[in-house]
Amino acid sequence: MKAIIQRVTKASVTVGEEQISSIGRGLCVLLGISMEDTQKDVDYIIRKILNLRLFEDENGRAWSKSVMDQGYEVLCVSQFTLHCILKGNKPDFHAAMPAELAQPLYNNILEQMRTAYKPEMIKDGLFGAKMQVHIQNDGPVTIELVSPSAPLDPKQLSKQEKQQQRKEKTRSKVPSESGRERATPRPRGQDPNASSGADGDVSSEREP
Amino acid sequence: MKAIIQRVTKASVTVGEEQISSIGRGLCVLLGISMEDTQKDVDYIIRKILNLRLFEDENGRAWSKSVMDQGYEVLCVSQFTLHCILKGNKPDFHAAMPAELAQPLYNNILEQMRTAYKPEMIKDGLFGAKMQVHIQNDGPVTIELVSPSAPLDPKQLSKQEKQQQRKEKTRSKVPSESGRERATPRPRGQDPNASSGADGDVSSEREP
Repeated sequence: MKAIIQRVTKASVTVGEEQISSIGRGLCVLLGISMEDTQKDVDYIIRKILNLRLFEDENGRAWSKSVMDQGYEVLCVSQFTLHCILKGNKPDFHAAMPAELAQPLYNNILEQMRTAYKPEMIKDGLFGAKMQVHIQNDGPVTIELVSPSAPLDPKQLSKQEKQQQRKEKTRSKVPSESGRERATPRPRGQDPNASSGADGDVSSEREP
Repeated sequence: MKAIIQRVTKASVTVGEEQISSIGRGLCVLLGISMEDTQKDVDYIIRKILNLRLFEDENGRAWSKSVMDQGYEVLCVSQFTLHCILKGNKPDFHAAMPAELAQPLYNNILEQMRTAYKPEMIKDGLFGAKMQVHIQNDGPVTIELVSPSAPLDPKQLSKQEKQQQRKEKTRSKVPSESGRERATPRPRGQDPNASSGADGDVSSEREP
């Protein structure tokens, strides 16, 4: 699961002429669900969205407060294009979870987020609809979150694995659909312990 | 180098009360430069931004045309927060290139992009300023680009490497600054051939 989190002064969603959702200060989250996501990914992403310290405190100290600390809102919009694999310059979205599977999981994520924070603070778009998402990115501050078992980018495959695949491809003289699928493998991240848990004051105090 | 590319109906940047930049249809690019970026990363990112097929053609066929094909504009804003490493819930930005080094490289990227397309089609923000970036994400369509030698996420380290590090940490009884730095290593992607070059019609025709 991938999430692009933008800190916003305000954000809203329109479908056609109608505004269907809006928030004031808070986070606009574009959420991409992959074929391989499980409850573990859901738990990680929700925890991070709600607890990431992206806001300043009352003394102007940056990176001190979370969206929950500040009582700000979250606008969450499904975004399958985040699981894009490039075929040259053309995007391919087969790594994204198909809509019929992603929609119930997405709704579930929203429900869990509402339970973990407050129902009225979590807004969303309209799953599958063509939307205009109006984002006033404040800073700007944009964070990319990748959940523990999200598929790696193909470019992050080791050279060795790629060479092995090339060899296999050369050996097989008959092109096949399954062979084509193997040409864009999706290895998995191997260690779910993304964050060290060390919460010491080690962050750069650099401002956007 | 990382780029978050949002397909937009329009986008603009304000600093204080003043609008300093605006585009109509096109791409809003939030660009994060890391400590390890070189000219190779610059070339890759520029080529992809300008050639990615994120727009439909005159017959409504999705993922057919690039921003250059359509004569649309690009708004590019520097965004160091993309090279964020989480220390628990606190973001750390030491992996981002320091501003004094990043600014000339960023200006250089803009110049190269203007040369590759048309100078008047590439707009930017105000490097280092506190900005409001107004983004009307159309779809939404959001693509994350990672250049060939961008540092991997620490979570994408192999389990083996992590275990090795833990062992080393346990052995050393004296905590040190350099030890702490090693706890968030930044391995490099090993194969720069991110895209297969195969431009066949293999993309999902799924719409946002």
